[in-house]
Amino acid sequence: MHSFSELSEQFCNYFHIPNFDREPKGLYEPCAYFLGAGGKRIRPVCCLMGNELFGDIHPDAWNVASAVELFHNFTLMHDDIMDRSDLRRGRETVHKKYGEASGILSGDVMLIIAYDYLNKIDSKLLPQTLSLFNKTAIEVCEGQQLDMDFEKMDHVSLEQYIEMITLKTSVLLAASLSMGAFLGGASKENCDKIYEYGKNLGIGFQVQDDFLDAFGDEKKFGKVIGGDIRRNKKTFLMLYAMENSNATQRKELLRLMDENPIDKVERVLEIFEQVGVKQWALDLRKKYADAALKSLGEAEVAEERKAPLIDLTDKLLNREV
Amino acid sequence: MHSFSELSEQFCNYFHIPNFDREPKGLYEPCAYFLGAGGKRIRPVCCLMGNELFGDIHPDAWNVASAVELFHNFTLMHDDIMDRSDLRRGRETVHKKYGEASGILSGDVMLIIAYDYLNKIDSKLLPQTLSLFNKTAIEVCEGQQLDMDFEKMDHVSLEQYIEMITLKTSVLLAASLSMGAFLGGASKENCDKIYEYGKNLGIGFQVQDDFLDAFGDEKKFGKVIGGDIRRNKKTFLMLYAMENSNATQRKELLRLMDENPIDKVERVLEIFEQVGVKQWALDLRKKYADAALKSLGEAEVAEERKAPLIDLTDKLLNREV
Repeated sequence: MHSFSELSEQFCNYFHIPNFDREPKGLYEPCAYFLGAGGKRIRPVCCLMGNELFGDIHPDAWNVASAVELFHNFTLMHDDIMDRSDLRRGRETVHKKYGEASGILSGDVMLIIAYDYLNKIDSKLLPQTLSLFNKTAIEVCEGQQLDMDFEKMDHVSLEQYIEMITLKTSVLLAASLSMGAFLGGASKENCDKIYEYGKNLGIGFQVQDDFLDAFGDEKKFGKVIGGDIRRNKKTFLMLYAMENSNATQRKELLRLMDENPIDKVERVLEIFEQVGVKQWALDLRKKYADAALKSLGEAEVAEERKAPLIDLTDKLLNREV
Repeated sequence: MHSFSELSEQFCNYFHIPNFDREPKGLYEPCAYFLGAGGKRIRPVCCLMGNELFGDIHPDAWNVASAVELFHNFTLMHDDIMDRSDLRRGRETVHKKYGEASGILSGDVMLIIAYDYLNKIDSKLLPQTLSLFNKTAIEVCEGQQLDMDFEKMDHVSLEQYIEMITLKTSVLLAASLSMGAFLGGASKENCDKIYEYGKNLGIGFQVQDDFLDAFGDEKKFGKVIGGDIRRNKKTFLMLYAMENSNATQRKELLRLMDENPIDKVERVLEIFEQVGVKQWALDLRKKYADAALKSLGEAEVAEERKAPLIDLTDKLLNREV
């Protein structure tokens, strides 16, 4: 059995980019550039970990892990265009560097190559793997659409936000784990437990991400604090604050978002403090961590095999603040 | 056995759009809008015709035909953004009507749903079908990239243009026919013959398309003549004219493209006339039609079953000028 970081290193060695050293350069170079920027490779490693939960890693798991990573990068490349982001992982985004047409077309070809990786697996396992992969891919598109819809809406409920996050982020983690488990010979029940584990892990991970943006330590977090607040992003924290503030506080929040004063982040954090956002977010994160670990606990496999996933949960959901 | 128009009607009845009557509306409505505009459905019908060449139409052929049509529409939706086209089939393009993010994301989801259709077929036939589908999809992206590259190049040879057209247009026709044949139980040899038939048909179809833009009858053609010339498009005709004109003619062609005078189309057509473009294009079309029919002729199946495809060749490559 391997830890997340061991598998992450193995995956990086496996997942070379020579695939993309082909012609026409205009199509493949942006793929190599984008994939070469690295990233945490959480999703493919989850696939490997879900697989290793039930035995030694099956060769097919590497192919599905690669498909998942390509799919994820395809979504990022296209999201960057839709969100008009100029930077990703500290580098220029593809559409910024190579033009928008490249961002679209190179993203498209990465998605198709993802399907080509899926097609390398044992044909007996293909239909069910493809079925979950497709379902998930469709959900991720739906999540991105909801995210864009929410930006234009005045009011978004916490429930709606959780639905969006589930689709946009957490189902891919869940499916990666579950496809890995399936390739490892896990029963339907066990695959479902692992899926639930991943779904809760994914939502908890977003809570954590939103939390760190407001309350993280800039040095450890590696990003400037308050980016979401500056961009008026509807995060877990902001939605909770809007729903639980009194009339004066809410009016002030709306004013800050509207007027964008220089001390906006500070002032919003003051209101977060008054409304008790920090403790609520910590509790919420714990709620999802507990739910994830409960599902993992229910998976019928020797307890010691679960250790790497328990560590991962801790790593993702209890990053130092 | 059925003619192209019979199968086209059957496919339109089969390929309802209820698929896309779901939430979130922002994602699926642009798909329904775009697919609802119709189009000739040549590719899915080719899949059905390739299938019927070897027996009664297999239920799986409808699924693969649907996948092909969704894939084709996905490419059009994204190409329209890349090419900055405002109109398609007489209606506003998706990105023009719903915004660019919709054009990207709704295109993406159509591609994924195409894969979901593929996953409905007999699992024994899935890996090989998926393999050709993926190969083709990658080639179509490469073709689109080359097409965009060529726009920025001063000189493109006829050979390069044919390679681009093969990738961008004709491999999808070829693969549609060949996947249909495969699902119909055709041997590898027969699938390859049908593929070759489709590839030549596709290139010939592009010759025809380029030809009609210059020499067609506006009323029968349904488009204004000279659109390609006005937009300085590198077509079969223009590339031939550039390669076969004398220094004076070539200089004049370049001047016309550069200066865009009001009588540009007329003047370019005069040079086409002098260089013998019309006859050359008719001969080229015949060359591809002959090559297509030769491959079809070599397919080992009762001659009478080939009649609908022979008719199709005639229909596509000998449209009245």
